Amino acid sequence: MFSPLKRLLLGRPLPTSAAQHERLSRITGLAVLSSDALSSVAYATDAMLEVLVPAGLLAVSYTRPLAFLIASLLIIVTFSYRQTIYAYPQGGGAYIVAKDNLGIVPGLVAATALLIDYVLTVAVSVSAGISAIVSAAPSLDRYRVALAVGCIGLIAWGNLRGVRQSGRIFAVPTYAFISSVMLLLMAGLWRITTGHLPPSQELAGQHATATVGMFLLLRAFANGCTAMTGVEAISNGIPAFEKPEAKNAAATLLMMALILLTMFLGISVLSTAFHVAPREQETILSQLGRAVFGARNIPYFALQVTTTFILILAANTSYADFPRLASLLARDRFAPIQFTHRGDRLVFSNGIALLTVMAIALVIAFDARELRLIPLYAVGVFLSFTLSQTGMVWHWRRHRERGWRWRAAMNALGAIATMGVLAVFIVAKFSEGAWIVVLLIPAGVWLLLAVARHYRVTGAALALPDHPHAGPRHHVVILIVPEMNRQIADMVAYGSTLSDDVRALHVDLDPDCTKNIQQRWPRWGQGTQLTVLKSPYRSLVEPLLAYLETVDQERSGQTVTVLIPELRPRHWWQTLLHKHWSVQLRSELEDQSHVRVIASFEWPFQK
Amino acid sequence: MFSPLKRLLLGRPLPTSAAQHERLSRITGLAVLSSDALSSVAYATDAMLEVLVPAGLLAVSYTRPLAFLIASLLIIVTFSYRQTIYAYPQGGGAYIVAKDNLGIVPGLVAATALLIDYVLTVAVSVSAGISAIVSAAPSLDRYRVALAVGCIGLIAWGNLRGVRQSGRIFAVPTYAFISSVMLLLMAGLWRITTGHLPPSQELAGQHATATVGMFLLLRAFANGCTAMTGVEAISNGIPAFEKPEAKNAAATLLMMALILLTMFLGISVLSTAFHVAPREQETILSQLGRAVFGARNIPYFALQVTTTFILILAANTSYADFPRLASLLARDRFAPIQFTHRGDRLVFSNGIALLTVMAIALVIAFDARELRLIPLYAVGVFLSFTLSQTGMVWHWRRHRERGWRWRAAMNALGAIATMGVLAVFIVAKFSEGAWIVVLLIPAGVWLLLAVARHYRVTGAALALPDHPHAGPRHHVVILIVPEMNRQIADMVAYGSTLSDDVRALHVDLDPDCTKNIQQRWPRWGQGTQLTVLKSPYRSLVEPLLAYLETVDQERSGQTVTVLIPELRPRHWWQTLLHKHWSVQLRSELEDQSHVRVIASFEWPFQK
Repeated sequence: MFSPLKRLLLGRPLPTSAAQHERLSRITGLAVLSSDALSSVAYATDAMLEVLVPAGLLAVSYTRPLAFLIASLLIIVTFSYRQTIYAYPQGGGAYIVAKDNLGIVPGLVAATALLIDYVLTVAVSVSAGISAIVSAAPSLDRYRVALAVGCIGLIAWGNLRGVRQSGRIFAVPTYAFISSVMLLLMAGLWRITTGHLPPSQELAGQHATATVGMFLLLRAFANGCTAMTGVEAISNGIPAFEKPEAKNAAATLLMMALILLTMFLGISVLSTAFHVAPREQETILSQLGRAVFGARNIPYFALQVTTTFILILAANTSYADFPRLASLLARDRFAPIQFTHRGDRLVFSNGIALLTVMAIALVIAFDARELRLIPLYAVGVFLSFTLSQTGMVWHWRRHRERGWRWRAAMNALGAIATMGVLAVFIVAKFSEGAWIVVLLIPAGVWLLLAVARHYRVTGAALALPDHPHAGPRHHVVILIVPEMNRQIADMVAYGSTLSDDVRALHVDLDPDCTKNIQQRWPRWGQGTQLTVLKSPYRSLVEPLLAYLETVDQERSGQTVTVLIPELRPRHWWQTLLHKHWSVQLRSELEDQSHVRVIASFEWPFQK
Repeated sequence: MFSPLKRLLLGRPLPTSAAQHERLSRITGLAVLSSDALSSVAYATDAMLEVLVPAGLLAVSYTRPLAFLIASLLIIVTFSYRQTIYAYPQGGGAYIVAKDNLGIVPGLVAATALLIDYVLTVAVSVSAGISAIVSAAPSLDRYRVALAVGCIGLIAWGNLRGVRQSGRIFAVPTYAFISSVMLLLMAGLWRITTGHLPPSQELAGQHATATVGMFLLLRAFANGCTAMTGVEAISNGIPAFEKPEAKNAAATLLMMALILLTMFLGISVLSTAFHVAPREQETILSQLGRAVFGARNIPYFALQVTTTFILILAANTSYADFPRLASLLARDRFAPIQFTHRGDRLVFSNGIALLTVMAIALVIAFDARELRLIPLYAVGVFLSFTLSQTGMVWHWRRHRERGWRWRAAMNALGAIATMGVLAVFIVAKFSEGAWIVVLLIPAGVWLLLAVARHYRVTGAALALPDHPHAGPRHHVVILIVPEMNRQIADMVAYGSTLSDDVRALHVDLDPDCTKNIQQRWPRWGQGTQLTVLKSPYRSLVEPLLAYLETVDQERSGQTVTVLIPELRPRHWWQTLLHKHWSVQLRSELEDQSHVRVIASFEWPFQK
């Protein structure tokens, strides 16, 4: 039933035939699939500097080398993923690549890692988006959590309605963001070359320390690697591209990597040139904006607004990816089949709902501060990178196409590089929160396997036997008779047609009523036997359960039908005026080990 | 099913045989039945003075005459009710007396008035009890509402558990309260006679006004009449007394009236002698206690504590009266029959729950301040007094026993007196809140009559026909087939034994699944016809409803059985992994105008 409220919130239901797919050009493809990757520059430099700045000036001097190290890693991963695009033109998500090449458990590990990361992407991106707003309007800081929750709610609502995610709608904020950042970089560069640098204020209180620990650099490196999250999106979305899909996707990936590289390096270099340090209430990008543009003026606000928009778009991509991966897992019977269900608006509503609940929980738990969430983030990303690239190595080894050695070597380089980052991540951020993800991934895999085992057992139990068989060997019909009236008379007449073994039961709750039934039974009972059950505690259910148990023991292979009268009044308020025997009894009379048919005899009293 | 939580909160269920009745002596009867009446002295004088004091010294001088007027009214009502006791030894509540003698509508008016007043008694008594606490500990003032709600919750909990309301338990606080007040009165009298009066402080700022308006006096009189609430309780509880019941009840009524009279007059006289005026944060009784006993000492605290206790006892009497009256109305089919149901602990749980919800709502709406509730209070009491006394006049006229003229005259005097008070009440307090009750009473009567009409119509429709008839003329069995497996095969085999007209339905939500079923049907369908329903909006329900509608139109007098498969896993968490067709469909497939049997084929998959 499509209720008016649901209709108001979600719009009219869409027919299945309305499902259609827009093909993406390189331009729109970049807009739709790269918001997650590009938006990470809004927090990656913050995350890196957050570690370096408190350690002093010498540590800060490592910012540029670290940024270039991360940039070269990005290049390796990009070329590694280019190969996946050509090998899996139908869509090469880490779950599919790992499952195909490495086996079920590695596939499930990748899937769990991705699911966790999709939730984190929503939480981190929305929190960072709120940070961009708070940077521009600091008085909103205390509404941070409420704003983030409201924002997630809006994204979820849009996705439940099934927003038409057309390339054009995505193109505006994505290219606006790229333009804003590019403007910032160029203006910043001009200031540097013309020597208009402001005096260092942010680092004024800092003193240089003699040595910089290795561990500190590892942590800064790990944090900066969050810039690489989202790079895999294009390889998941290949079939959405215009023909030739693989070629367009590969070109888009390169273009995206180039833009990401420029922005991340630019922001990192500028932030050292302008002596900017991360603060609780203002992001690096906002500080750079103020420093470069000179004040909270129009270019500055444009930067903040486009940053917020692209971060919300990034969160929105998880709303496409998470439900799709959950439905893939459900199709393979690793997750509840409910995730395969498309709602009234053709979207995977259950996946959207689950993602929303978990992301909101995370935002509340971490106070909507993206820098606190960073230690948990990207473990999953790099684990799925590693598994996907390793899977590709196996892929080339099996297929041995022309030039497979070179390709395998490229993917092996990618796998080693991302595995290295993963190791750094786990070691450097373990105690800060990465341990949560390290524990969650095996737990998730165990859960997926348990679900699969259940479906396997169920499937075996539900397998059709060799031959069809006749009806139940014996059929006992039990009539629940709470009082004596026309409905009950109809029910008895109906019940008597079902079987030869019909028994009427009355639970004695009121002596007058019992007496009345006993007196009328010879005339109205249609020859069935009436049994009156005592109920010292005035319970309807307990005596019935005890009786049904004795019936179950009479013989094996029988089916018991329990027929319960239910009066159906014309108006809803009248339902308050009647006892609803079947509502009360239905769930109680279920049984773990016997076939039982629980039937309500629905009788409209105004015929 | 008696859940562990319910058991922990309410205790083990009691067998019906545990219902027993303690007979009350005059001493215990006074304790059990008079807390409502006696406790009203805790707020009646406050309510009267609240009107008089702001009007000046001349107005205050009317306190004593008004108190004596109210006292004489009390004597009239007492003697009037004595006659009810002898005429209705089986219990003469206003509902019964009015219905017996005046007819159904007056009976229902009395019943509605009483129900409203029981709710108000809880709200007023608990609020006054909290006022007594706040008077002794003023810092608790801001927790007033929370304390009141908590207190009502405790009373409700005790009543749901079925506290053994023995005379002995009630005797202690009742007689302690009487003793405390008597001590106050004697000490106060001693102070007056020995001339130890404190200088008038409370009225220091007041100036005498030349005239006192009639309307003001009427309002003060109406407010003071709240002292008479609860006087009827003994006439309701006659059967609880030891033999001879009527004689003992009548003697107890006289005793109670005497005590009430003494306390009310005493407090009113003392409050003028000690120049005490009501204040938001301290009751008259508390101010008198401080003035008479000299400080917040032991006798003072004893007075406050016993006042609180008797007020809570007074609220508790409504918890006996409201559910009992609701069950009487339900027995006569003016209220939902659910009110006749005795819960696990032998109490009328539904009545208790309704009373609690309404009383808590009132306490919250009126900020737990009894003086704000007073304008609503007592309208119902005096309306039921009037109807009950008028009913008695008719009673004597019909029965014409020896001396009936005298008796009728006595009741007529009572009726006229209470009707006069009622008129004063409505006029004087209409705009202050009495209008709410004036509107609620006809609305309530209309509701009770609507319920009765529904039960009458239902009863007629449910009346047994002249002759038993055979089963349904035609029986259509519809099998819902969402997929093809062993359970469905069993269900088809079972369904085929029920009727000659069996039809299998499949809603096409997934083309692969539909194809699979169609291929297997020839072998597993037991010869039944399979119909595949299209569902463009992926809804399971809509196509089924449309199909059932056409089936209903095929012929009249047929019964349709809809058989829905339901898989019952062994563990609760596994239920999350399956689609629950019958849960989803049951309520949707109900129909307003056709007999339908909705049956779930419950199949335990691990047999």
